[in-house]
Amino acid sequence: MIAEIITVGDELITGNTIDKNAAYIAKRLYEHGYIVKRITTVGDDVGEIRRAVLEALIRAPDVIIISGGLGPTHDDVTVYAVALALGRDLVLSEQALEWIKEKYRELYEKGFVDTPEINEARKKMAYIIEGSRPLKNSVGAAPGIEIVHGNTRIFILPGMPSEMRSILEEHVLRSLGGQQLKAIKLKLFSRDESIVAGIISDATREVGTRIHSSPKGFGKDAYIELIIFGKNEEEIEKTVRFLRDKGLKFEIVKK
Amino acid sequence: MIAEIITVGDELITGNTIDKNAAYIAKRLYEHGYIVKRITTVGDDVGEIRRAVLEALIRAPDVIIISGGLGPTHDDVTVYAVALALGRDLVLSEQALEWIKEKYRELYEKGFVDTPEINEARKKMAYIIEGSRPLKNSVGAAPGIEIVHGNTRIFILPGMPSEMRSILEEHVLRSLGGQQLKAIKLKLFSRDESIVAGIISDATREVGTRIHSSPKGFGKDAYIELIIFGKNEEEIEKTVRFLRDKGLKFEIVKK
Repeated sequence: MIAEIITVGDELITGNTIDKNAAYIAKRLYEHGYIVKRITTVGDDVGEIRRAVLEALIRAPDVIIISGGLGPTHDDVTVYAVALALGRDLVLSEQALEWIKEKYRELYEKGFVDTPEINEARKKMAYIIEGSRPLKNSVGAAPGIEIVHGNTRIFILPGMPSEMRSILEEHVLRSLGGQQLKAIKLKLFSRDESIVAGIISDATREVGTRIHSSPKGFGKDAYIELIIFGKNEEEIEKTVRFLRDKGLKFEIVKK
Repeated sequence: MIAEIITVGDELITGNTIDKNAAYIAKRLYEHGYIVKRITTVGDDVGEIRRAVLEALIRAPDVIIISGGLGPTHDDVTVYAVALALGRDLVLSEQALEWIKEKYRELYEKGFVDTPEINEARKKMAYIIEGSRPLKNSVGAAPGIEIVHGNTRIFILPGMPSEMRSILEEHVLRSLGGQQLKAIKLKLFSRDESIVAGIISDATREVGTRIHSSPKGFGKDAYIELIIFGKNEEEIEKTVRFLRDKGLKFEIVKK
């Protein structure tokens, strides 16, 4: 199963915010057996978001997760841009509006906002894409959206990390299901990536697991980290044995 | 001037590493007057990298910065993939080979590697793209590469943050030049994004600056952060006055 991630936000493309959401979503998808082929980041711009979505749809992944730009402000244009990309209209979701009203009542009672009134900006978050399903946001106000287009399931999530995570865990991952891939992390007692390159290459070919190596640390503290991904424990153990047989010294950091 | 960033690495698309490089490059480009329109992240896969580069070239930005996958291991395939995308051959750069030899001699003398010999894996890093220029890496072994394609300047940098930064600062930014955009960060004493949305929208239209707003913090500590980008101090000051005149309360966090 192939997935793509699209993160949206001027704060990302100007480098003012490090995109932790993309890594979080990628990790959780990977753990559910989805291979993320591409992460695309664009600003809060209707044309750019629309284009990124259209291009992702051409590659026809099984899942597209979009995060960011669902709030009430002028630069929250993600839902509109996705609707444009899909050639669909925006419609007011009574369900979403009800959730938003509840949330602002709750925030008002806790003293977090100055009024519980649903103004135009707040109401904007209740507009979803024709034929889509709103996903309840138990942390914040903006609901997520799920929409199916051809063979691709598209999920649109807020950009606030706590809200994104809550909808991802409660709705997206539950509904995606999928078989978890196994991964193991090794710390190689060799500081020289070029020496071990051949052995890793042989192991990949021999066992069929995917091995990622990256140099870590610096100078005297430098080491090589290997991450081995396999369909099951057996495949991973076979790879670990292979590396050991070839004379590599390492410790297992994380199972 | 429009820029795109492509970051490469399985550790990124599996979410094992948060992509700080993209944010760093974006920030530095922005400070030099370049607008980053898109950040694309793909794994260490020849086909995916090639496709991402081809798609970026179609959008014809002034600059493409590619980072990651320049090392000596089996999964460092970025240079080869970019060469494929451009329809060019790989050629051995005597200059790059000389730098690599120097670097390993230095690392060997410091006791960081076990041998100064240039094996095949190390030599691989001296292959650059036909018609390109190698960029000296003063921190690590893998040289960067600059190549011009049509109206687009492409820079290929290592993925190790210290090496990427060193080549970006020493070669890329110096050679790009460009006029610095000004930015200012405000902390708004309002916790309710929906209330200020209209005012921000008016300010954007009125003054022509770009304003990004994002909710920060949580509950009682929630606030709204505004970043105002302008061509000069005057434009930014005009925007700040506008916001103040409309009754917004804020403090300036970072000039």
